[in-house]
Amino acid sequence: MNDVLHSLTLDGLLEEHRRTHPHGIAAVFEHRVFTYPQLADRVIQLGNALQASGVGVGDRVLWMGQNTHAVLELLIACARIGAQFCPLNWRQTAAEIAFVIDDLEPRVAIWQDQEIGATVLAAREAASFKPAVWVAFDSHGSDSYDAYVASGSRFDAMAAEGRTSDPSLPCMIMYTAAFTGRPNGAMMSQTALLWQNLSLVDIQALRSETVFLNSGPLFHIGTLMVSTAVFHVGGTNVFIRRTDARAVAEHIHNHRCTLAFLVGKTQHEIVELNRGGLYDLKCLRSPSLSPEWDAMVTVTPERSLFGFGQTEVGGPVVWQYYGFGKCASRNGRTGPVAMVRILDADDNEVAPGETGEIVIRGPTVMHGYWRRPELNAQRQRGGWHYTNDLGRRESDGSLSFVGPKTQMIKSMAENIYPAEVEGCLRSHPAVADCGIIGVPDDKWVQSVKAIVQLKPGSSATREELIEHCRAHIASYKKPRHVEFIEKLPRTAAGAVDYATLDKLFGGGNYPGGATRGA
Amino acid sequence: MNDVLHSLTLDGLLEEHRRTHPHGIAAVFEHRVFTYPQLADRVIQLGNALQASGVGVGDRVLWMGQNTHAVLELLIACARIGAQFCPLNWRQTAAEIAFVIDDLEPRVAIWQDQEIGATVLAAREAASFKPAVWVAFDSHGSDSYDAYVASGSRFDAMAAEGRTSDPSLPCMIMYTAAFTGRPNGAMMSQTALLWQNLSLVDIQALRSETVFLNSGPLFHIGTLMVSTAVFHVGGTNVFIRRTDARAVAEHIHNHRCTLAFLVGKTQHEIVELNRGGLYDLKCLRSPSLSPEWDAMVTVTPERSLFGFGQTEVGGPVVWQYYGFGKCASRNGRTGPVAMVRILDADDNEVAPGETGEIVIRGPTVMHGYWRRPELNAQRQRGGWHYTNDLGRRESDGSLSFVGPKTQMIKSMAENIYPAEVEGCLRSHPAVADCGIIGVPDDKWVQSVKAIVQLKPGSSATREELIEHCRAHIASYKKPRHVEFIEKLPRTAAGAVDYATLDKLFGGGNYPGGATRGA
Repeated sequence: MNDVLHSLTLDGLLEEHRRTHPHGIAAVFEHRVFTYPQLADRVIQLGNALQASGVGVGDRVLWMGQNTHAVLELLIACARIGAQFCPLNWRQTAAEIAFVIDDLEPRVAIWQDQEIGATVLAAREAASFKPAVWVAFDSHGSDSYDAYVASGSRFDAMAAEGRTSDPSLPCMIMYTAAFTGRPNGAMMSQTALLWQNLSLVDIQALRSETVFLNSGPLFHIGTLMVSTAVFHVGGTNVFIRRTDARAVAEHIHNHRCTLAFLVGKTQHEIVELNRGGLYDLKCLRSPSLSPEWDAMVTVTPERSLFGFGQTEVGGPVVWQYYGFGKCASRNGRTGPVAMVRILDADDNEVAPGETGEIVIRGPTVMHGYWRRPELNAQRQRGGWHYTNDLGRRESDGSLSFVGPKTQMIKSMAENIYPAEVEGCLRSHPAVADCGIIGVPDDKWVQSVKAIVQLKPGSSATREELIEHCRAHIASYKKPRHVEFIEKLPRTAAGAVDYATLDKLFGGGNYPGGATRGA
Repeated sequence: MNDVLHSLTLDGLLEEHRRTHPHGIAAVFEHRVFTYPQLADRVIQLGNALQASGVGVGDRVLWMGQNTHAVLELLIACARIGAQFCPLNWRQTAAEIAFVIDDLEPRVAIWQDQEIGATVLAAREAASFKPAVWVAFDSHGSDSYDAYVASGSRFDAMAAEGRTSDPSLPCMIMYTAAFTGRPNGAMMSQTALLWQNLSLVDIQALRSETVFLNSGPLFHIGTLMVSTAVFHVGGTNVFIRRTDARAVAEHIHNHRCTLAFLVGKTQHEIVELNRGGLYDLKCLRSPSLSPEWDAMVTVTPERSLFGFGQTEVGGPVVWQYYGFGKCASRNGRTGPVAMVRILDADDNEVAPGETGEIVIRGPTVMHGYWRRPELNAQRQRGGWHYTNDLGRRESDGSLSFVGPKTQMIKSMAENIYPAEVEGCLRSHPAVADCGIIGVPDDKWVQSVKAIVQLKPGSSATREELIEHCRAHIASYKKPRHVEFIEKLPRTAAGAVDYATLDKLFGGGNYPGGATRGA
């Protein structure tokens, strides 16, 4: 039985904002503006429509699109009815998306035609799971998302019955990078999101006056956690489908955005295209970058979102904000909603200065991975979530991220796990064994190199193997280089001997010294 | 079964601070300074000592003293072992304190001799409940608080067993003003305190660098909630037994306090006694007051703690901070951890602009009153906490506090409930009936006037009746004026007819137009 008197929920906050911000703008997408009362009405209808499609407690709803107001609406509507919302990584291949469809078995899938429609439809074709109700976001007809929302009853049964949703149930599934060779869906409860929101409200000084430009991908916790925190305090979320310098500048100008997370490349592009002063960007609060950039925006001290964390704990829970520049670590200190320990291989806490696995406890920790009981038992035990990441406590109490326990390759902002690329290569008929390493790359930090042992009597060219990967996994994960080896070195325990491969084939520049964010 | 993986607890935070702030100062009292590791060690020992005294889950521990580090230690130690900590209002009479002892039935009572010892010992004598273990805070002998802490084992059984305390259990009982003629103990869970902490961290910009001077009474939620929030982020709590201008100035100077809540009277006294510049108070961040004050401190924009709330919901949950000066109400808007509704007598939500009872839902709402099942059923129903306060939603969504549903009298910062004073007067053998009203008072806002109907054939002087009250309830609650009446006017429903009494005897200046804080 849910404890209604003490509940705090996303849909409850929305009903509160309906009353406390009757004229407040909740969301902006393209030419549409939604006030809080309008959003609250839509979420009631959307929840009722989902229930009419048979979505019950624990069922999944898949968003196969980019950044739009629908992400916010679907998240809150799913939370409201006890369902689980999953925002798909739309950069994936059809085969990868089909894997998600089959893993998730959603009751309802809302898909976007623009830019990604062909891939999504190919995934629909390829997936074994067929019963989902498909809703077309971009359509203007009777099969459209808006028609679907409108099909829902306007009756607020929860209010009439004095109920609330149960904040301890998972309301979101976010697939994380493929540590184990396939992606896993981290299930987050409303309570996890709400605690993390309050961390962000403080760290980013969020207010109902905040206007946040959602430009980074909402299938990453790093952007989505800010959207939900801005929503939490009754601020405004402005959505653009994806990062594009002109769209960013236009939306900041038109909607007076105060907050956006932009990479240097986008900022420099904006400086170039705004040399004529077409866009007024003074509303944007931003750390200093260059004299040209600084002259356009309102320069404020940096309030970094970086530190240490992962999707499985709701994003960062150790923050640069707590001690950056004043402590020994670049990752900062534990925030107000988590406990962190560094454990040795026997699960004993290590002394400051010693390296061990970072484990985390607290209300933002995921419910577990969707349909991965063995992995959950391995990652969550003894009251701790095992991050698979190595860390060290400095003598002043700050935390340093040392590196992933599972070797990881970094291509710009993307994390690439060798196990996943190896699994793809091993599915090629000519490949007997293989190991993936990262080699230093001036432009991309690292690039992916495959060391391949062919089956006796088989042959395959470098180009064939790269093409094989391009067809099965996201393009940025495919090897840029392929080398052949007679016999792949393996450790005594039978694992790929990465140390030897790195030595033989020029591996290096692995993340670990660097700060790691969400 | 407690969900260890997702738990956030006061004792868990203390263990985290032990690691993240190994040199951080947790508490300062008189000549003693406690680092976070020292405080963590003491709390383990104190929890073990309390358990050795027989304190189990749900049992009560009573603090009968002023502001000291023991308040923080006892709160966390009680939370750790599932017990309930009660900080006594030490301004009460022996009879009032005896009522609390009998109502609470504490297993352990820690008492302070300085200033209040005689009253406390008289209460001990007067109370019917005798089995409590009494510990003398001021003693230096084997019966002392320090000896008691030291008597506890240093063994951290919880860590050894991989347990945490259960944050959903009540860990604190705070007696509130006597709405119903006697004080009631509001039971707060750890979770309630921790959510409220995060509100305060944002509103007061609390950091581990914050040094908070605990000068206001810690038996009020208004000061205690800031202490716990400062603790939550690893800041420093400096304690002085009670507000005293010289002690305040000395402690700010000596311990570089950055935050203190001072009333104008104290600030003016500090200006006077610091004319020679003896105390360096530049570390204190304070809103502007006067040229002399401003020159001594670091002037910062006001971040008011006022708004609307009550002890039963963890203090304010509607805050001036959200919209003050920019919204129609002086009380501001709902903060991030509560939902607020205005209901009519039939529990239906009223329209904006209409007055009704304010009800609140959310994780900071109390567990209930200790041992008041009927009152709990009345105040907490349908998933809402009924505040007994009247409010109005303005057209911009902000909340205005209108006044208490139960008529309340304001004597400076103190709330006086007529029912309580009436109950005391009715216990006088000569009194047949009585009503208490507030009359305007230039110095105290209001002063208390009793309208008394004597029993036929009985007599009592004004002075006798005032003396009777002085002997039984806190001095500030006693009537300043007494008038006699033939027959006390009552409404058709049988309630005291305050409107008529106000008209006949000059009542007025009731709170309601004014902002109401914790």
